[in-house]
Amino acid sequence: MAKGSGPLLTDELDIVIPTIRNLDFLEMWRPFFESYHLIIVQDGDPTKTIKVPPGFDYELYNRNDINRILGPKASCISFKDSACRCFGYMVSKKKYIFTIDDDCFVAKDPSGKEINALAQHIKNLLSPSTPSSSIHCMIPFCEGADFVRGYPFSLREGVPTAVSHGLWLNIPDYDAPTQLVKPCERNTRYVNSVLTIPKGTLFPMCGMNLAFDRELIGPAMYFGLMGDGQPIGRYDDMWAGWCTKVICDHLRLGVKTGLPYIWHSKASNPFVNLKKEYNGIFWQEELIPFFQQAVLPKDCTTVQKCYVELSKQVRDKLGKVDPYFTKLADAMVTWIEAWDELNPSGPSTVLPNGKAK
Amino acid sequence: MAKGSGPLLTDELDIVIPTIRNLDFLEMWRPFFESYHLIIVQDGDPTKTIKVPPGFDYELYNRNDINRILGPKASCISFKDSACRCFGYMVSKKKYIFTIDDDCFVAKDPSGKEINALAQHIKNLLSPSTPSSSIHCMIPFCEGADFVRGYPFSLREGVPTAVSHGLWLNIPDYDAPTQLVKPCERNTRYVNSVLTIPKGTLFPMCGMNLAFDRELIGPAMYFGLMGDGQPIGRYDDMWAGWCTKVICDHLRLGVKTGLPYIWHSKASNPFVNLKKEYNGIFWQEELIPFFQQAVLPKDCTTVQKCYVELSKQVRDKLGKVDPYFTKLADAMVTWIEAWDELNPSGPSTVLPNGKAK
Repeated sequence: MAKGSGPLLTDELDIVIPTIRNLDFLEMWRPFFESYHLIIVQDGDPTKTIKVPPGFDYELYNRNDINRILGPKASCISFKDSACRCFGYMVSKKKYIFTIDDDCFVAKDPSGKEINALAQHIKNLLSPSTPSSSIHCMIPFCEGADFVRGYPFSLREGVPTAVSHGLWLNIPDYDAPTQLVKPCERNTRYVNSVLTIPKGTLFPMCGMNLAFDRELIGPAMYFGLMGDGQPIGRYDDMWAGWCTKVICDHLRLGVKTGLPYIWHSKASNPFVNLKKEYNGIFWQEELIPFFQQAVLPKDCTTVQKCYVELSKQVRDKLGKVDPYFTKLADAMVTWIEAWDELNPSGPSTVLPNGKAK
Repeated sequence: MAKGSGPLLTDELDIVIPTIRNLDFLEMWRPFFESYHLIIVQDGDPTKTIKVPPGFDYELYNRNDINRILGPKASCISFKDSACRCFGYMVSKKKYIFTIDDDCFVAKDPSGKEINALAQHIKNLLSPSTPSSSIHCMIPFCEGADFVRGYPFSLREGVPTAVSHGLWLNIPDYDAPTQLVKPCERNTRYVNSVLTIPKGTLFPMCGMNLAFDRELIGPAMYFGLMGDGQPIGRYDDMWAGWCTKVICDHLRLGVKTGLPYIWHSKASNPFVNLKKEYNGIFWQEELIPFFQQAVLPKDCTTVQKCYVELSKQVRDKLGKVDPYFTKLADAMVTWIEAWDELNPSGPSTVLPNGKAK
């Protein structure tokens, strides 16, 4: 099976998988994932054994491992929610991360060919982004395409791409109310495009098919406090996406969305989801304006500095919405402390041209 | 041949075509255009006769007609440049405009079916836009798709769509330098998507396959001073797009881009284009920041007021870049005066919900 052309980055990329079950889904991904290192973050009961198909190179962390490695700082890592996956980002030593849910399978393109999602993510990450005030379905940095008229030449170098947000066919990523109203809806539309999300525009990031440059943006990829003991769940990836986008805009880094597609097999239970989400449905009305208006000061030149500054704004402005956000602001700081402890080489300073020093 | 489902708006839409030659291209569009009224704006030598295939209902204006109807205000309508098409927007009495170039033909979708571009534009215009801070290739207001998680429910009503910007296959819409460097490039990528261009994001509008709601945004669709006697050409549609987008953002109106595709048959001469464009290549470096930073005051509640205010900002800020922009600012005001003269019912006030009163 073709693995796609272009660099494979097998020594520079970890695949992070949060799970509570045996990883049989990896069989389908074998031709694409087998040469990569996996970081498996086991959620829930740590005494349970997770079976990984033979032939995969992996390390596995359960809750006991997380507690042992982070000590009291483990409080920032969610339990009984796939938000726990961000622990994997923290312990990785690689430049790139690809994270995928264990209910996602290989999709096919309209010609029937299996899609090598990881190869497309790598293409997305290794080519520049164009967040500057222009959008078009003609995609620059892509074979057979270039900037159309009116795009200033001084901006055509683009900026480094920090995030590649892939999409999915079949089960759509709906909130509980939409799931309840449209139980039969399936996504069959294959949109053959990769877009840079413009500067100043937020997006609903989903963690099921996501790649990023850990050196450029890793410390912003905190999936928040969700699940066990928290008044909210299922907002982990969106929280990370909103924070990440604000920081990428500030540091002149790019976020892409579109290809590659994966096949999302399983709709989660909308009644369970409603219970997890209902606070978020109220809160998102405040969160979106908050992130739209968030401005980071010029002296925030590293992702860490940006993230700590954002945590202050969360405390000041969202703390009034619910005490949960004060707790979350604390956890954001703890996350950065834990990140720096496990990654002692120090933060990258992002230069004015958007490149890391 | 199928004309597409949904309302056809035959009594509410004019098709505007700028041309210098016989309109043989209409034969291919006959099944799609025949029931609409055409407004043909003849450019160049007014003594030349333009042949229109039989069976089409049309009115034709040449330069003598424009001069007669507008008197001294005809100075705002470009000559020897397809920018003259905006005269057709002004004389139309319909709610919607579709404008197309005479070197554009019916495209086929990936299944080989001929695309009814006009039907897709109408669909785009009649369904709301979602400019509020979120982008995704899952398209709301479209069969089999809805808002994904994280999109605030209070924003899901969307805003009225003012502009539908279609795309094209085959000859890409490159500037002269890119044309020179990539003479053989063809666009073959069919992207099955319609996106709302987010608030605050500009886009390179092209006039070759464009529809808009004349009542909502018509007076902003001025294609500027181009061609004969002017130091610039080929920036007509982009100028209109930048102005329109700033005004749509201010008035809470939506701009969509993506489907429908048409087939762009003919590459224009890059050497001729370079001569027309070279000033624009310098100026666009200033124009993009200008439009990105343009803010309209709250009391600008009609398109006309917005446009006159924008003309002042063009004079103040771009007049320093080149005297041409002072002349253009004058022409912008003349355009609005002429528009109001020909459309005496008065401007629509756009209400806070983005709807016209």
